[in-house]
Amino acid sequence: MSSTAALKSLSIDNINPHVKEAKYAVRGELAVRSEKYRAQLKKGYPPTPPEESLPFDQVISANIGNPQQLDQKPITFFRQVLSLVEYPPLLENEEVLRSGLGYKQDVIDRARWLLNEVKSVGAYSASQGVPAIRESVARYIERRDGYPSDPANIFLSAGASSGVSTLMNVICAKPETGILVPIPQYPLYTATLAVLNARCVPYYLDESKTWGTDLSAIKQSYQKAKSEGTDVRAIVIINPGNPTGASLSATDVRNVLEFAAEEKLVVLADEVYQTNVFVGQFTSFKKGLRDLQKEQPGKFDNLEVASLNSISKGMVGECGHRGGYFELTGFDPKVAEQIYKFVSIMLCAPVTGQCLLEMAVNPPKEGDPSYPLYKEEYDAIAKGLEDRANALYEQFKKMEGVECQSPQGSMYLFPTIHLPQKAIEAAKAENRLPDEFYCFRLLDATGICVVPGSGFGQKEGTLHFRTTFLAPGTEWVGKITEFHRGFMDEFR
Amino acid sequence: MSSTAALKSLSIDNINPHVKEAKYAVRGELAVRSEKYRAQLKKGYPPTPPEESLPFDQVISANIGNPQQLDQKPITFFRQVLSLVEYPPLLENEEVLRSGLGYKQDVIDRARWLLNEVKSVGAYSASQGVPAIRESVARYIERRDGYPSDPANIFLSAGASSGVSTLMNVICAKPETGILVPIPQYPLYTATLAVLNARCVPYYLDESKTWGTDLSAIKQSYQKAKSEGTDVRAIVIINPGNPTGASLSATDVRNVLEFAAEEKLVVLADEVYQTNVFVGQFTSFKKGLRDLQKEQPGKFDNLEVASLNSISKGMVGECGHRGGYFELTGFDPKVAEQIYKFVSIMLCAPVTGQCLLEMAVNPPKEGDPSYPLYKEEYDAIAKGLEDRANALYEQFKKMEGVECQSPQGSMYLFPTIHLPQKAIEAAKAENRLPDEFYCFRLLDATGICVVPGSGFGQKEGTLHFRTTFLAPGTEWVGKITEFHRGFMDEFR
Repeated sequence: MSSTAALKSLSIDNINPHVKEAKYAVRGELAVRSEKYRAQLKKGYPPTPPEESLPFDQVISANIGNPQQLDQKPITFFRQVLSLVEYPPLLENEEVLRSGLGYKQDVIDRARWLLNEVKSVGAYSASQGVPAIRESVARYIERRDGYPSDPANIFLSAGASSGVSTLMNVICAKPETGILVPIPQYPLYTATLAVLNARCVPYYLDESKTWGTDLSAIKQSYQKAKSEGTDVRAIVIINPGNPTGASLSATDVRNVLEFAAEEKLVVLADEVYQTNVFVGQFTSFKKGLRDLQKEQPGKFDNLEVASLNSISKGMVGECGHRGGYFELTGFDPKVAEQIYKFVSIMLCAPVTGQCLLEMAVNPPKEGDPSYPLYKEEYDAIAKGLEDRANALYEQFKKMEGVECQSPQGSMYLFPTIHLPQKAIEAAKAENRLPDEFYCFRLLDATGICVVPGSGFGQKEGTLHFRTTFLAPGTEWVGKITEFHRGFMDEFR
Repeated sequence: MSSTAALKSLSIDNINPHVKEAKYAVRGELAVRSEKYRAQLKKGYPPTPPEESLPFDQVISANIGNPQQLDQKPITFFRQVLSLVEYPPLLENEEVLRSGLGYKQDVIDRARWLLNEVKSVGAYSASQGVPAIRESVARYIERRDGYPSDPANIFLSAGASSGVSTLMNVICAKPETGILVPIPQYPLYTATLAVLNARCVPYYLDESKTWGTDLSAIKQSYQKAKSEGTDVRAIVIINPGNPTGASLSATDVRNVLEFAAEEKLVVLADEVYQTNVFVGQFTSFKKGLRDLQKEQPGKFDNLEVASLNSISKGMVGECGHRGGYFELTGFDPKVAEQIYKFVSIMLCAPVTGQCLLEMAVNPPKEGDPSYPLYKEEYDAIAKGLEDRANALYEQFKKMEGVECQSPQGSMYLFPTIHLPQKAIEAAKAENRLPDEFYCFRLLDATGICVVPGSGFGQKEGTLHFRTTFLAPGTEWVGKITEFHRGFMDEFR
């Protein structure tokens, strides 16, 4: 019992136990230490007292997909429009618009159109999001999939995270409710299930097949959970994968849908990396569903798919603006009504995030004045991500005791690390997991923050870490290699 | 049982029952209908078919404190800075800054400073918020209260709503956990308690004393709940009041704190209207606590106070930007750690909202180039609110069967309405509560959307509605008067 338990209303022993159970390593102790280092460096280097000086001069946050923290420049069109919607008097200043600011006519037109739809970015929007922006999202989905999309089924959210939280809040009815979650996974899923006091039903991804879904593993996990009394209601698929970077084929997508239909499971398709695909082509679960429904009329009409997307990822990378959406397909209207009510309690998603989402799904088109620059910026970001993913992959291949699947998509690599026995013992002595111990050592030595595999889940006896490939340059990759060599030597 | 219960994974009968129980009238059926009318008017007037044409040409959303939806202009300084942080190349364009745009040096300086602190508004910030912005908030609280404030205890949030949700998630440990909530209240509290499957312990405010807190009523509710096995852990105070507009005296604040200390309750002080006070002076619960601690050393050291604030209210009125904060005082560090983890799962509050918060708590000062315009705009908004509150109050006083407490603060009036028996029967025939029936009639006849008292809670046998006094002009007030006369005549 904590010392204040008897004195205060709240102590660690009497608060919500489900909040306590939740784990969220992406922003955990490592991230907190890295922020401390960043603050220390900011105050001047070397800091006082000198014994606390750090062996690096910058912190590289490779723990989280946060491109603009790592020098990715925002896309000009998006930000020009946002500057106008934030300060509309600019739109009335003819002189300024003709001067050297570089605002093109389509920037002005878009800003005027958005302002007309939102009235002010300082006003709450409708709970589900600005109607015209939901319309734009629906048109994007139609172009992407070749099937109709209804804006009434689209909910704008503060990033994808709040969408996931909403859907899980509605689905998790009792402690026996279970949701199939891939392992490794983005810890938002297990953390939310913990808070909601519902069950995570883990299914393992197949590392030997570039982290693809393994239907037999899914079925086995499902049957086991059922036999233990779990009421499994949904399956989470992260495609392209996080932390794995895997990109699913159309067949993989179809297999999951058929399984979900058979077992009457909601498909929660986390598709936030849908434009971050290097290998093959992205197939949405919505498209997969519509294809199946066309081929086998009637059979899949009751399958429910929720697809999530975000402005934080893709080439947009506007994490700080907290924008995103989810689309409901096949949901009972009465259930959708409850989802509506739930989101309305938090009033609305940030309105500039909604505006950014509109531009992300409806960017300048060929022939538009802003198109050439938009295309140039977009392509450069895409190429940069792929190049850096491959460069990092090549380094990992060369490192002793490291194995890495080839990059396919998203923003991450998730290499396996084999650590010497002595390192595992040293970790134990510090009361840490071996991969966690490795990541703390890496951070302390280089300022590079990655997340241990244990934060995402990994098969018993395996060790990994997740790193983004967002940081510019190659110097930091060299630092990892050098650290790794020293670490292996130290504990060999 | 709904017809799809057997066919789909999710039906109204098997989703989370606690989500179903939640009620949120501010954005409920009335608000949805008003949005439908707004969309209908937007598409052209009169609409086709002609029998659907509406007897009004604009919708006035007096259901929600959303100033910029009702033509309140944003404060120029805030938005100029935001335009620069959204599109930083403007800062490099010397020519533009000297031209007729009106960007003053302090605007430029603030934008540069904020950009230096956030790196990019498109990057996730630290989970608890940008450190330098938390520092600014702490300095604001110190100026307000005359007591120190530590940025480590400040959490930036997406409006106050997400802060309330966070705190309640941590406090509500089991179904028997109860929180004292004022009635009438802002329905965020009861809705969140319903979702969390915890108990609302209602205490009635005293309408006869301009809706003040009545300590004996609080004690009575507390004792009753305790005797029923409720583990009461916190008390919510909304000051200035929503929906009531009441403003508490320093003595009221002290009384509540003494009671909370006696019974070991966390004080959740919803202080989002702290600058919206016409009568008397705002006293924060933090200041009340520090005063007590100074006078009676030792006695109040374990009392926990969480104070919430928002950029949506005050003269800022930037609802769409979703910014706010809460400050923890007296919390066990281990509990604060869990709060930190909980907020980190949703990554961070919107970064432009954080920037706006920084400016709201640290606006231009006397002598700064932007000060004269800032002051003029701020004062005009404050005066407009007070004038409209009084104008509306004068109208209510004249209306048959309507009683209204004099305006003291916040953005709302909450008049009592006495409806004729026939109206109550007509409501029953439509399966509606009488006040709800009245509000639907008002909306259908005038386009003015208010919220029935039943959405906030009211004493058995009384009827009210809540209206904001944000809409400009007086024409709409005349429309309410006219509607009311007709309604009374119809059902007399």
